[in-house]
Amino acid sequence: MEKVRRNERMSAMIKILSDAPNHVFTLSYFCELFGAAKSTMSEDIDLLRNVVSDYDLGELETLTGASGGVVFRNRVRKEKAREFITELSRTLSDPGRILPGGFLYYSDILSDPIITRKMGSILASAYADVNADFVLTMETKGIPVALTTAEALGIPLVIARHSSRAYEGSAVNINYVSGSSGSIQTMALSRRAIHNVHRCLIVDDFLKGGGTAKGMVDLMHEFDVDVRGMAFVMETITPAQKRISGEKALMVLEVGPIFDDLPSVHVRPADWLMN
Amino acid sequence: MEKVRRNERMSAMIKILSDAPNHVFTLSYFCELFGAAKSTMSEDIDLLRNVVSDYDLGELETLTGASGGVVFRNRVRKEKAREFITELSRTLSDPGRILPGGFLYYSDILSDPIITRKMGSILASAYADVNADFVLTMETKGIPVALTTAEALGIPLVIARHSSRAYEGSAVNINYVSGSSGSIQTMALSRRAIHNVHRCLIVDDFLKGGGTAKGMVDLMHEFDVDVRGMAFVMETITPAQKRISGEKALMVLEVGPIFDDLPSVHVRPADWLMN
Repeated sequence: MEKVRRNERMSAMIKILSDAPNHVFTLSYFCELFGAAKSTMSEDIDLLRNVVSDYDLGELETLTGASGGVVFRNRVRKEKAREFITELSRTLSDPGRILPGGFLYYSDILSDPIITRKMGSILASAYADVNADFVLTMETKGIPVALTTAEALGIPLVIARHSSRAYEGSAVNINYVSGSSGSIQTMALSRRAIHNVHRCLIVDDFLKGGGTAKGMVDLMHEFDVDVRGMAFVMETITPAQKRISGEKALMVLEVGPIFDDLPSVHVRPADWLMN
Repeated sequence: MEKVRRNERMSAMIKILSDAPNHVFTLSYFCELFGAAKSTMSEDIDLLRNVVSDYDLGELETLTGASGGVVFRNRVRKEKAREFITELSRTLSDPGRILPGGFLYYSDILSDPIITRKMGSILASAYADVNADFVLTMETKGIPVALTTAEALGIPLVIARHSSRAYEGSAVNINYVSGSSGSIQTMALSRRAIHNVHRCLIVDDFLKGGGTAKGMVDLMHEFDVDVRGMAFVMETITPAQKRISGEKALMVLEVGPIFDDLPSVHVRPADWLMN
């Protein structure tokens, strides 16, 4: 085999590392892949760490000891997150997005692969230190951003459903009060979905009254799972008193009084991103 | 600014390119980013193309002409796809996954970020040439793999719902006959979801009778959208006659006769992957 050059090793390595965020690759893995000595690989990794940092592409961390190796962390710096969310808020404040009843159309944003990838990386950066074992979301609209958050954290995604299905086996069902409508709803999760995991991060698209979020918290109690954080794409200013607290949303939605069916709608980045 | 070295340029470039699959970056973009001459960047790209190919990390394509530049394609070679799906089929054939009624539990697989990413890349490779403008799926379980397929193809994802919601504006509703149960179901899609797009790729988790898939095809006709392909994670052997045809599934599910509530279940890779 021809000798692999440094630029080739480094290029292949960053792609392999960033395809599996939070997965620790041993030095030996790369030594074998490239037929290179450990000292050479260490130099490569040092150089690569600086490249990743200089171009704001995430973080490369070297772990020492028995379970040592190198790992790529999908981190977004606050300035970059702020810039992206500010631009997105501007897009969403377009009056053409207002629907009758004071709703905001943003389903297109919630299923856009590039946008959800960025939102997931931002949420993962904000909750990098809570050591969640998995991400929990409630079907449907939050699934893409919950998936990208889970991917960036290197953990699985679990999806709660409105009702239990035969093809998911025995399930735990809970009832909860929808914060917006006040109606009683059901939330179901397959018993098999939670196995030997104890800490979760809740990720969903929208927080208004907090009924659904409270339902997810209650559901996790049934499984003896500790909720380490709650993250949302969007939350409304009113009601100010929600059924949960301590959450982080990316954006805040303010709906003006309804005249002629179409109220004014304003979306802005959440405070924690701006400070 | 210090002069950027080739290994630094190449490492940053592959990360930036692969974070936006199918997006064409101009040579000037990279020249400016790295403060390098066009001839230097061309050499970098030639070297990078070989690295990406040698380590089976996708494909780097150079486009010439006015809209020229360099673009990363998320391609998986058939041997690699076959190996991955064969291993996954083995995992899913575990008798512990059989549920009462002959159902197979695989929701965990369908929301695993690493597995859905790989499945999405495989489906995107299979449908790279159909020039779809967007991916369509039906809520809920197919959303993660539909998202990763859309991401790998560099196109948006559109999600049909079981019923239309106020927060998605006016919608087109169609009724369809569920292939498995024979019951009449509703499928809804916001009118705003389809805008100036004409060709779609349908991606879903499961194909049995094909009722839901046929519903999605009918829904697309309502929007004057041409269905260029249909892809599924899993399809059942029976019924052999489905309400749609020409689809590609990754895996085939065979359920044996039901004794004592728990039938035998066998999952194998689809034929098109094995040839």
